[in-house]
Amino acid sequence: MGKEKALNIPVVRKVLEVNERIAEENRRLFDEKRMLVLNLMSSPGAGKTTLLETTIDRLKDRWTIGVIEGDLQTTADAERIACHGVRAVQINTEGGCHLDGNMVRAALDRMDLEGLDLLVIENVGNLVCPAEFELGEHEKVVILSVTEGDDKPAKYPTVFRIAGVLLVNKIDLLPYVKCDVNVIRETSLQVNPDLRILEVSAATGEGIEGWIQWLEDRLARLRRGD
Amino acid sequence: MGKEKALNIPVVRKVLEVNERIAEENRRLFDEKRMLVLNLMSSPGAGKTTLLETTIDRLKDRWTIGVIEGDLQTTADAERIACHGVRAVQINTEGGCHLDGNMVRAALDRMDLEGLDLLVIENVGNLVCPAEFELGEHEKVVILSVTEGDDKPAKYPTVFRIAGVLLVNKIDLLPYVKCDVNVIRETSLQVNPDLRILEVSAATGEGIEGWIQWLEDRLARLRRGD
Repeated sequence: MGKEKALNIPVVRKVLEVNERIAEENRRLFDEKRMLVLNLMSSPGAGKTTLLETTIDRLKDRWTIGVIEGDLQTTADAERIACHGVRAVQINTEGGCHLDGNMVRAALDRMDLEGLDLLVIENVGNLVCPAEFELGEHEKVVILSVTEGDDKPAKYPTVFRIAGVLLVNKIDLLPYVKCDVNVIRETSLQVNPDLRILEVSAATGEGIEGWIQWLEDRLARLRRGD
Repeated sequence: MGKEKALNIPVVRKVLEVNERIAEENRRLFDEKRMLVLNLMSSPGAGKTTLLETTIDRLKDRWTIGVIEGDLQTTADAERIACHGVRAVQINTEGGCHLDGNMVRAALDRMDLEGLDLLVIENVGNLVCPAEFELGEHEKVVILSVTEGDDKPAKYPTVFRIAGVLLVNKIDLLPYVKCDVNVIRETSLQVNPDLRILEVSAATGEGIEGWIQWLEDRLARLRRGD
């Protein structure tokens, strides 16, 4: 072992480069099939799956939806999602801390993509590592629960910098926690002035209309071929 | 680049092996100085820093305490901790998703270890990656907020398997969230039958006595030289 060189940094770069190539191939497939693809990221328990359930129930009569669920273990989330009558595939990373382009490609092979309008990829619950790996998605959506506190955009800036949309979730719990949504807005706009910020409660449905409208607009534009 | 072999898996192993050697050196230093060292792990916003503040206030009159704060960015947490009159050093990982033995060693060089009884290392907020890296600590403590939901031990089993203590935090919010603490108990004991589970609210102080008593017992044993 003493004869080996310290190769870790070059190898990490190579992994990211290889991933980007695969992500580009995924993206070409998504564009060819004319589907909108979202990469949903957050800490564990910020409400990704509940938001997804609420979103599916509001959209599924008008749009055909698929979901790729990323988890370290279990098929619990894919089962929850499949109950809502949409196409669902589970990726188990077996301890891996993020999804990558290759895992998504493997999941796409197991999903019927015909006629799909919207594909949501729910990443592993982790506010750090998923931000480094492109999957081929059109938009990154980050969810932050108000129970996590208003210091998170300053402390975990990367994911807020690369996201297109920030959903500030669980606003029904604001009376019970120490969290100022204005601080979340200000600090996340500092790292990403173009970030679209929406306040929601996936559990009660509060504020969900704005999110659904954003999705409807994107889907309608895609159908028109904009 | 085409001539290089696919080296990533061997390199990851080597990184972990090198880390374990450094962690063992840290451990020898901790034992020599007769201090108790904890590695505090959780998702972002589960309440690590608030728990630490509450813990310090209860113990600092009887024991000398130091804190190493791990964050991607900012020195906000180390500043919060330093206000409580204990020794604090900040590690900024600059995007890195976990602390490792080497980062802790570098932080130890910046801290006065003389007469220290308790050193708490607050890891980066991440329920996945920190579980893979030994720091030389005597005990791993994982915090799970009830706002994250009761499915987390099943979905993120590694950190619950390697921890000695699980603090189920924010129990003051139980009336407002969908979370059954019995499910947390059952599923975490399935992956780790020896796990000590305590229910607390770092914010209100509820249940904190059990945690403080556990710490006092460990510190007293160390002082007696058990």
